Amino acid sequence: MRKLIASSLVAATAFMGASSAMAEKKDADYVEYRQGVFTAVAWNFGPLVAMAKGEIDFDADLAQRNAERIAQLASMPLEGFRGGPHDAGDGHTHAKDAIWENMDKFEGGMEKFQQEADELAEVAQQGELGPLRQQVSAVGESCKKCHDNFKED
Amino acid sequence: MRKLIASSLVAATAFMGASSAMAEKKDADYVEYRQGVFTAVAWNFGPLVAMAKGEIDFDADLAQRNAERIAQLASMPLEGFRGGPHDAGDGHTHAKDAIWENMDKFEGGMEKFQQEADELAEVAQQGELGPLRQQVSAVGESCKKCHDNFKED
Repeated sequence: MRKLIASSLVAATAFMGASSAMAEKKDADYVEYRQGVFTAVAWNFGPLVAMAKGEIDFDADLAQRNAERIAQLASMPLEGFRGGPHDAGDGHTHAKDAIWENMDKFEGGMEKFQQEADELAEVAQQGELGPLRQQVSAVGESCKKCHDNFKED
Repeated sequence: MRKLIASSLVAATAFMGASSAMAEKKDADYVEYRQGVFTAVAWNFGPLVAMAKGEIDFDADLAQRNAERIAQLASMPLEGFRGGPHDAGDGHTHAKDAIWENMDKFEGGMEKFQQEADELAEVAQQGELGPLRQQVSAVGESCKKCHDNFKED
């Protein structure tokens, strides 16, 4: 039985490439991972900003779903900066070396983002635009602070 | 007060670019979003596969955290395929046109992935390698099925 699982495991995960790549990440993997997470954050945050600015109609269900996602995603990017600076290979990284020169400050900024995102998910459950607008602004502020200090334009 | 929030909102989210881009996604946004989510899935799935194959030590806490993340992420990519095929712009998409020619089948595949990922998160809470190996294989199988049908190598 164990052998059966082992062989189906190999077949089922062959598309992921060399198994060593799964456990041992390369520099480019770090860059792609954190950029991927931030892209997913922005995708989900965009409609909340548009609602907060009155550019699209307030949709309480969408707001709640997206806020919950942002809170989930907020825990993910930090580990994508571990052991850097990373060589992005053919890609590009906007991460300033300042991150690794001030890792404590950077971690504090990511923690603040996580807190504000958790609060956003809480607030979105109320189903009211007013408190949401205020917390969208707080989350945006936490993003902006790290971008100003640690991200190249 | 409302005016104050509005102006801080503009300042706090100015880094996100033109506000219209937040609500109205471009083709390249779709491609980047879904690729970003899948990159985050692979990053978190990799160590589970390596544990299942015995390539790294079983770590129950890490397994539980990553499995939970994969279940959260699994709900996200489908909307990145809406309204396609998309022009990736300067980027590249591996998505086959078969997705949009068989959207029902594709949606079914994504639903299967979500179910298997939810089950993975459940199983990981047991803190045992045996059941985890089996469910990692099931998740991998659900990935592979869609890749075979809908993803260019």
